[in-house]
Amino acid sequence: MTLEAIRYRSGSLQILNQLLLPHQTVYEDIRSVQNAYQAIKSMKVRGAPAIAIVGCLSLAVELRAGAGGDDPVTFIRESLCHLTSARPTAVNMGRAARELMEFAENESMEKNSEQLRESVISWIEDMLERDVNDNRKIGNYGAQHILSGVPRDSVTILTHCNTGSLATAGYGTALGVVRSLHALGRLKRVYCTETRPYNQGSRLTAYEAVAEGIPATLITDSMAALTMREMNISAVVVGADRVVANGDTANKVGTYQLAIAAKHHGIPFYVAAPSTSCDLSLESGRDIIIEVRPPEELTSINGVPIAAPGVEVWNPAFDVTPHQLITGGIITELGVFLPSELQAALTGRLTAL
Amino acid sequence: MTLEAIRYRSGSLQILNQLLLPHQTVYEDIRSVQNAYQAIKSMKVRGAPAIAIVGCLSLAVELRAGAGGDDPVTFIRESLCHLTSARPTAVNMGRAARELMEFAENESMEKNSEQLRESVISWIEDMLERDVNDNRKIGNYGAQHILSGVPRDSVTILTHCNTGSLATAGYGTALGVVRSLHALGRLKRVYCTETRPYNQGSRLTAYEAVAEGIPATLITDSMAALTMREMNISAVVVGADRVVANGDTANKVGTYQLAIAAKHHGIPFYVAAPSTSCDLSLESGRDIIIEVRPPEELTSINGVPIAAPGVEVWNPAFDVTPHQLITGGIITELGVFLPSELQAALTGRLTAL
Repeated sequence: MTLEAIRYRSGSLQILNQLLLPHQTVYEDIRSVQNAYQAIKSMKVRGAPAIAIVGCLSLAVELRAGAGGDDPVTFIRESLCHLTSARPTAVNMGRAARELMEFAENESMEKNSEQLRESVISWIEDMLERDVNDNRKIGNYGAQHILSGVPRDSVTILTHCNTGSLATAGYGTALGVVRSLHALGRLKRVYCTETRPYNQGSRLTAYEAVAEGIPATLITDSMAALTMREMNISAVVVGADRVVANGDTANKVGTYQLAIAAKHHGIPFYVAAPSTSCDLSLESGRDIIIEVRPPEELTSINGVPIAAPGVEVWNPAFDVTPHQLITGGIITELGVFLPSELQAALTGRLTAL
Repeated sequence: MTLEAIRYRSGSLQILNQLLLPHQTVYEDIRSVQNAYQAIKSMKVRGAPAIAIVGCLSLAVELRAGAGGDDPVTFIRESLCHLTSARPTAVNMGRAARELMEFAENESMEKNSEQLRESVISWIEDMLERDVNDNRKIGNYGAQHILSGVPRDSVTILTHCNTGSLATAGYGTALGVVRSLHALGRLKRVYCTETRPYNQGSRLTAYEAVAEGIPATLITDSMAALTMREMNISAVVVGADRVVANGDTANKVGTYQLAIAAKHHGIPFYVAAPSTSCDLSLESGRDIIIEVRPPEELTSINGVPIAAPGVEVWNPAFDVTPHQLITGGIITELGVFLPSELQAALTGRLTAL
């Protein structure tokens, strides 16, 4: 059974508070857009796809309760604008906001307020369902691509951060690939980096693996290269916060270093991301603005200081992996593509192999 | 002023308990070899040179009190054997034990028990003094070598783990190089990795830097490659637990990954180590046995769990960096050598450039 991180039924939304994991499993009600903004900002929910889903579902909950009155379009626009500002690097919320706004504006030409609310709610509910389905496709395409190189053997995967049910609408992207390999009986083991400073690997990926019986071993971020050399790693698979036109990928800090180490060891390096995480409006990764987060994330854990007082800290949340290091491919719901093929694939000029 | 981690005067030894740093500065009496064994095993004192110094000084303290009675040689042999077993990877304790044992056996042929105790105590006190002097030479040679490539500018260094006063008899090896650059007014900044899982960087290196006013920025281990790309790093300088004949170097886990990233960015990678950390009896790093430590070091901090219960853990304490990646050189008290020159340099067939 796949872990349930987002519980939605019409008019009601709950999220698993990821700040309390892995020690407490607590679901919290999200009753408003403002609740969702706070949950995203404080990282009760994180992961680019999950942020977009929770943001939009919170809007659906408010619309179900009649929010926006006679002018739902203005309410929708202001809500989406607010939600997009909560975490700037993840592209999915921004994209969902643009698409949903365009849809709402078109609908508003021929529908009254009540009908408009209904259509927007349906659009958001479809988005939830589509995202889970897309993740299953990503898992399947990724697993097949990795296995195509090793016809009979089981494979050992190294992954980073959390890209599972807790980071997406469900199932996961990079961890979805791991889930698919496990479901096929072809996963020997997955090595999870703890993913400092926020420990998404040790708290969340490890939690998902234990919950579902996936054979997993936790390592520190600093052990990844040694693990590649000693543990016969078949592939490195990571998620993405944003993939731009040339294939450069912004993802959790540390990804760039893993890609360099994978290249050094001749291990294929894959990025798993729905097409909604791809942003063809940016040509290269140089244009991506990287979020720098507070020093306290490094210098304390659960409020307890762990570093020498007074030391300066640099805490970039993401880094950009140049496309040249993405040697395995970019795994999307449309198929697995080389970075150089991505643009054509997403604009319909290339179909999956 | 350089931080004092080992306080010794004839008959008395105190160490700064590093498990309590950076929050509490507590010196503990070491009255016996068994006290020292426990302090090394529990990592109240760590760092290959410091382990050897504290081990030998504890023996000097016991000898001053008359330990060994009429047969000090047997007492010395058993003590050194016990001390060497506390941490297997660090070579310095083993080397000091062999040299001291040979000295004691020779002395015992012509001296009585009391005279023998006095000579052995002098030998150990000389070792302490020599180690600090060697570190100052390492700092000076390393700084000059790094600066030779940048005639006028200040330099930015990236380092790993703790290799300062807290890891050595005093001054430090890799951090000694940083200290020397700072003393010359040529250090712009040092970036310290937090060095999971034991956080020697955030707890100890940061503590030393803050205490001495060295401009330092703490990063996670996963940010090192990004820091190399973004922060104009002039050189990466690390310590060593053991350097073998071909230059392969065992050091704190994560070193190998840093060396790969440095190579990728064309940044010189230096190992700073006294010749006592060099072990020419091993031909290559493949022969080094790596200590695997308990999972709890990853899954909890100060006894508080931080990972999902039930996940498996791999916790190797060290890794081996192949000599090909040590592009800057190996900095010793005899000078800076390429890995290929090390053996000749240490056996007197090559002098420092």
